[in-house]
Order: sequence, then structure tokens, then C-alpha cells
Amino acid sequence: MAPSRRVDLETRFAVQDLFDRYAACLDDGDYEAWPRFFSDPCLYQIIPRENWERGLPLATVRCESRGMLRDRVTALRETMMYEPRTVRHLISGFRVERGDDASLLARANYCVLETLVDEATQILQAGEYRAAIDEAAGELVFRELRCVFDSVVVRNSLVVPI
Amino acid sequence: MAPSRRVDLETRFAVQDLFDRYAACLDDGDYEAWPRFFSDPCLYQIIPRENWERGLPLATVRCESRGMLRDRVTALRETMMYEPRTVRHLISGFRVERGDDASLLARANYCVLETLVDEATQILQAGEYRAAIDEAAGELVFRELRCVFDSVVVRNSLVVPI
Amino acid sequence: MAPSRRVDLETRFAVQDLFDRYAACLDDGDYEAWPRFFSDPCLYQIIPRENWERGLPLATVRCESRGMLRDRVTALRETMMYEPRTVRHLISGFRVERGDDASLLARANYCVLETLVDEATQILQAGEYRAAIDEAAGELVFRELRCVFDSVVVRNSLVVPI
Repeated sequence: MAPSRRVDLETRFAVQDLFDRYAACLDDGDYEAWPRFFSDPCLYQIIPRENWERGLPLATVRCESRGMLRDRVTALRETMMYEPRTVRHLISGFRVERGDDASLLARANYCVLETLVDEATQILQAGEYRAAIDEAAGELVFRELRCVFDSVVVRNSLVVPI
Repeated sequence: MAPSRRVDLETRFAVQDLFDRYAACLDDGDYEAWPRFFSDPCLYQIIPRENWERGLPLATVRCESRGMLRDRVTALRETMMYEPRTVRHLISGFRVERGDDASLLARANYCVLETLVDEATQILQAGEYRAAIDEAAGELVFRELRCVFDSVVVRNSLVVPI
Repeated sequence: MAPSRRVDLETRFAVQDLFDRYAACLDDGDYEAWPRFFSDPCLYQIIPRENWERGLPLATVRCESRGMLRDRVTALRETMMYEPRTVRHLISGFRVERGDDASLLARANYCVLETLVDEATQILQAGEYRAAIDEAAGELVFRELRCVFDSVVVRNSLVVPI
């Protein structure tokens, strides 16, 4: 990495803290707070690794504004039919660097576990977060968050955001 | 989080280090050293998420002193019947803040993997640690450690502490 | 831990960063870059926990130089027959200390997930990294990296390095 792209420990941990609060929000089931982790407009994508690597745009989920993120939460709360479930994020391997435009670029591995009522905890999805992060009013927010997932096999269905 | 509750990086990592040494103690099978990670009296609980969220007190395991923790180790070593097994902790998503009484409050996600002889490694339990941590004689110890777990389905039985 | 063995936060994170870049290299499938994470000569071992704990030398994989690591990559690329797959590392619980000879000693828990085409993501192997790390030309490299794994049951076969 070029020296100019290096970030100090404080910045690295501010980024990790953003991801950790993001994950806790979803793990706590506080979906209404989820869109606040993004800038507006933004890009949120859940995309299979195959498509990502070949530059194919097709994504399982794609939202381009806080409004679209909120729509997804409304669907989750009111219109989708699914068994109750909880998720649990494990995130490791943070790599953070400074982008050309003063934004922060971050990558990290994730494994999201899912638990359905009266079932054992299982792996829902593993993959890599690829994020571009802006600072707005002293807070870090995701301008882009791509969840690039490893397996195209989805147990049940993808209900809760990754 | 209120500014007065923020902790610096050194403190955040002292807490993470406490959890990492705690997990290593269990993963190494050094159960005799386990009670030393707690104050005396203390509260150690393994409690299902459902009960925790509804404020129901029923827990799978509950110990209120180092003596009770040691009793549990004695049971594990001498009286319980179970297949030999090893555990492996993955912990991520540390969030640490200062409590009202100068103690530290910490939350983190965990996934404990379990391996029985001649079997593949499997998920034993995933959930969230919720801890209140005191400083005693320059060392951090758990005054309260709650393991709030996601699935009520327990493979085999819960032998080793979480 | 003796005070003289303690390392500061900067050093602890330089070590974590080494592991995180190492894991990203393998997760990205950039196997040709993998040997550069080691000194020459070096020791890379994938060894079952049972053998490690009893001091038995038998390991599933053992390489003693960059040349042997490169041979393994060549085998992986050209001669081994296996289904395509990707891996995903989760690493947590870093504990770092200064060794007697100014090298760094590090331990961390790992869980490597594996995804085969059109299959769900599964646990390939969990265990503990035990490393001795040297500084060479301002870069940290593994002089020894032992992957001490928990389960002797290997799904499919061990293709990609751990």
C-alpha cells in the first residue's frame, strides 16, 4: 500500500467501530435504525462473488438511497412472510485505506449466522464487505457497502440485511 | 453514546484482551484457571436470548461466586459424564463504554465451535457477551458476564463454559 | 505475562495486520503471493491438535522453505484434481508477546469456511495459529506458522492453505 494511503490506528478503529455498531443494529433487530448508517444517496448491494468478480451488475439486493433502504425495512416488518429469526454477525480482517477523494476504503470478512425458532444456529452467509466510507457531520457513514457473498445457495431466504 | 461514556483505545483493548485471554483459557482446556477471570462475588450466566429480552430470570447456568464457578469445574472434571471435546471461541464486535460507577460495560458477539473426537467441527452456540468489568489490583475481572445465546437447541449438552 | 514480553498497541496491530493480509491473500485466491508472507527458510505446518499437544511431529502439511511453499502452489494450480472452491478466514483472539530473541510470538483462533460451487458455505477447519514472526527490511514475515487444527475429520480434502 502506498504510504499516502495508510491510515492511523484511531481511523482504523473508527471504521471498525462503524461496522461493529452496524452489525449490532441488525443483530439487535433494530432495523429502523439501519438506514442511518448510510449516506443519501448511497449504494447498498448484496452480490454474489461470481458476479462481482466478472463485473456483472446483477445483485440479489440493490438500494441506492435511504428511501430504498427504508422501503426494505417496511417490507421486512409488514409485507414479507417468513419465519421469525435472529442473525448474528462475526466480522474480522479489517483492512482500511485512504481513497483518492479523502473517503475511506474498507474491506472485512463476515460470517452471518442465523437462528430460527427451535432450530440450531447455522451459517446464513459468508463473504466480504467492500465499503467506501464518508465523514459527514463528524460521523462515519457508508457511501457504498457491498456484501460480496461466497455461496449462491441461500438457506430459506434472505430476509434480514447482511 | 454520551462523550463521558467513551473509552480510549488503550482501555478498549484492555477489555478485548480480557475476553481473548478468557477464551484462550477455555480453548486450552485450562478450566482450573477460569474462575480467576471473575470477581468474588460475581454473576456468570448462560441465558437464552428469549428469556433475557423478556426479563425472565431462568438461565441454563448461573453462578454467583468464584466458589460456584469452581464447583462447576469440579463437576466438569470429576462427576459429569460426557464425550471428550474441545471448544474454540470466535469473538468479534467489541463495544465498550464507561458505566456510571467507573466500571466498564462491554458487549461482543461470540460463536463457540465444538469438536468431538472423530467428528467435524460444528457450531455449539452463538450469542452475545454482556459484561460489567471491574479493575481490581491492576487487573480487569468480570463482575458480571452474561452469555446471551441465540438458539435454544443445544447439540449434545453444554459441558464446557461459554 | 512478564512486563518485558509486553508489546505496545502499534506492534500488536502490525501483527494482526500481517494475519489479515495473509488471510485476504488466500481468500482472494492469490496463491502466488502466499509464499512472500514467510521468511526463507521457514516452517509452515498444518498439524492436528492431538499431535501438537503430545509433541508428535506428524503434520498434514509441512513446508520448510519458500521453495516448498511455491511447490505447493504449483501443485494447487497444475497437478491436483479438485472441485473449484473458495475459502474465507475468520480470525480472532490475537495474543502477541515479545520472544527471547526479539522476534514476536503470536497466537490467534481461526475458522476457515469453504464454499464449493453450488453448495452452501461450510466450516472447513477451525483451530489456532501459533506463529513466530521476524522483521525483515521493515516488513513482518512468518518464520514459523503452525495451524493447529481441532478436528481430524476433513471434508473433501485440504486443497487451499489454511
